[in-house]
Amino acid sequence: MATRKLLLLPGDGIGPEAMAEVEKLVAVMNDVTGSGFVTETALVGGAAYDAEGAPVSDATMDLALAADAVLFGAVGGPKWDGVAYEKRPEAGLLRLRKDMQLFANLRPAICYPALADASSLKREIIEGLDLLIVRELTGGVYFGEPKEIIDLGNGQKRAIDTQVYDTYEIERIARAAFELARTRRGKVTSMEKRNVMKSGLYWNEVVTRIHRDEYADLTLEHMLADSGGMQLVRAPKQFDVIVTDNLFGDMLSDIAAMLTGSLGMLPSASLGAADEVTGRRKALYEPVHGSAPDIAGKGIANPLAMIASFAMALRYSFAMIAEADALDASIAEVLESGGRTADIMAEGCRRIGTSEMGDAVAERF
Amino acid sequence: MATRKLLLLPGDGIGPEAMAEVEKLVAVMNDVTGSGFVTETALVGGAAYDAEGAPVSDATMDLALAADAVLFGAVGGPKWDGVAYEKRPEAGLLRLRKDMQLFANLRPAICYPALADASSLKREIIEGLDLLIVRELTGGVYFGEPKEIIDLGNGQKRAIDTQVYDTYEIERIARAAFELARTRRGKVTSMEKRNVMKSGLYWNEVVTRIHRDEYADLTLEHMLADSGGMQLVRAPKQFDVIVTDNLFGDMLSDIAAMLTGSLGMLPSASLGAADEVTGRRKALYEPVHGSAPDIAGKGIANPLAMIASFAMALRYSFAMIAEADALDASIAEVLESGGRTADIMAEGCRRIGTSEMGDAVAERF
Ligand SMILES: CC(C)[C@H](C(=O)O)[C@@H](O)C(=O)O
Ligand SMILES: CC(C)[C@H](C(=O)O)[C@@H](O)C(=O)O
Repeated sequence: MATRKLLLLPGDGIGPEAMAEVEKLVAVMNDVTGSGFVTETALVGGAAYDAEGAPVSDATMDLALAADAVLFGAVGGPKWDGVAYEKRPEAGLLRLRKDMQLFANLRPAICYPALADASSLKREIIEGLDLLIVRELTGGVYFGEPKEIIDLGNGQKRAIDTQVYDTYEIERIARAAFELARTRRGKVTSMEKRNVMKSGLYWNEVVTRIHRDEYADLTLEHMLADSGGMQLVRAPKQFDVIVTDNLFGDMLSDIAAMLTGSLGMLPSASLGAADEVTGRRKALYEPVHGSAPDIAGKGIANPLAMIASFAMALRYSFAMIAEADALDASIAEVLESGGRTADIMAEGCRRIGTSEMGDAVAERF
Repeated sequence: MATRKLLLLPGDGIGPEAMAEVEKLVAVMNDVTGSGFVTETALVGGAAYDAEGAPVSDATMDLALAADAVLFGAVGGPKWDGVAYEKRPEAGLLRLRKDMQLFANLRPAICYPALADASSLKREIIEGLDLLIVRELTGGVYFGEPKEIIDLGNGQKRAIDTQVYDTYEIERIARAAFELARTRRGKVTSMEKRNVMKSGLYWNEVVTRIHRDEYADLTLEHMLADSGGMQLVRAPKQFDVIVTDNLFGDMLSDIAAMLTGSLGMLPSASLGAADEVTGRRKALYEPVHGSAPDIAGKGIANPLAMIASFAMALRYSFAMIAEADALDASIAEVLESGGRTADIMAEGCRRIGTSEMGDAVAERF
């Protein structure tokens, strides 16, 4: 059995607690199925800034580039609010995304039946929800230059960010979305603001062309991003795959996550292009929730999003589909059995902590 | 009594039908209260493009600049999808906003008790909701240059939009938000992406300074825009006034509108600075809903958002507070009485058309 190299980057806040539960599962998997995972752990975010002076060090970047998959916890917190922009915890995550060229961010929003009542939306609106947001992750306003604050010299300053998309960037994310739709219900909704932004206009044009030339058998629909946000709130089950740019994807995927009522449940995968020779792709997996500094260190955080992120790693980086399915099923079973961390607690359920939740999943696996 | 000059720009789709109901109310008001409104009507959007070759003509711009208030219906529709970017219907609206310097866009999201069940959210989440989004409307990525699609000459194109904010633009919208909060519950939440955007970082800094120096008695809270979107879906009643930039405001106000379950109900006001001598400010009032081409011309559109926009005009342009309150009360009464257009129809209610709805409000006024 080949070794499988996992780099663990627990990060800040509840990241380390959640990651500890994944480590349990890795150990179980190595024991039970002999999967041969080898893990290394490094710092990222505020923790890395404090210890190493940068939110991700060059040495850690080298480890990330050499790993088969990176598991990422969460970064940030009020402790680092005063840190210079270039060294803030989030800069570590952004460097990982950019240097690993992880252009495709997959964010499923799934409503677990056992949790449907936790949503602020009516049960009938979200029961059975299963959509996938495919967010462009290495372009747009996140990385475009100029990005600066300049002094105009008359008591005024000017802050500038630049949204930039090149043809190939839109083409590859469109293809990723169509490929994923093919394994699902065959429908892609592309969202932009073509009525206001030139990048939206061009995004629309390129996605339309890729559909026509390469995926005409699938369904493509276009929606303005503001309407898209409304439709997500009004009737989210109309969607299968949503493809959108970096900033709209940030907003829309958070809204989609909140619909499910269980933010602490949702994983994400950030994927690079497949290597032409080996077929392998760089990848980073992270929960959608943040570092939640207010509850960090109390042993009450929900580790399921982190565990589900590991399940995505099994699926997308190691083609261990049966294991991924089994892990997802274990999560659903634990929920059905009534075990709940504080964030998803409900009447008639049993409240458990982070570690107990990890154990419960591992037992059922 | 001085005359009060209203410019009516019905626009496309359901715009003209909705505007017709406002005209009824203007007539009633002139009769009953001698308010002396004088109206002129002109084309905008696709209708203006078809008839005059531009989505807003120079002559119409002159009328808008001379009016005491502009009432705007809606623009756009699939008919104009092929029109050049510079002449598309939306460009008419954007020119009005820019040339009239309407930098402050006020979008209340109110949940009418009679309509609480129409929301996709649970009743307890939105019952009693009353928040106000103050969106910056003449800056940011909507207007920043460069804004273009360039040919890179190697088979690749590059699409660019630019987000730009100068100090004074952030200062004046922050002041507008604080002034409005003072007439409400005294709390402002500022939303940006300071962890990713320099304009977000600077926005945060300027809003913080204006609060500290001029409005320290009010409460200021900062939220990342993606979290803000989530919080709007999870617990919208935590907000009083939300202040945010042009693009985030576009997304967030549409989401807030959808929460109420009655998009056809929500008005907006776009205001300029007060003239130093006369104290008068340029203003445009428009419903939040779009042109809804699919139901246009059928006499079934909901005119209440357009009528409520007129109520905002009474309030903000003419200081006719009693009349504005009376008009808002008439709208609520009609809803309580069970009269409903198709979009807000519910069991046990009476379905009525656009014109009947306008009559019902006018009768109660
Ligand atoms: C932490 C932050 C930089 C990040 C982003 O804006 O992309 C986060 O919100 C996310 O969605 O992964
Ligand atoms: C029609 C369009 C240009 C406009 C915008 O994006 O501002 C609309 O969505 C709005 O919110 O008023």
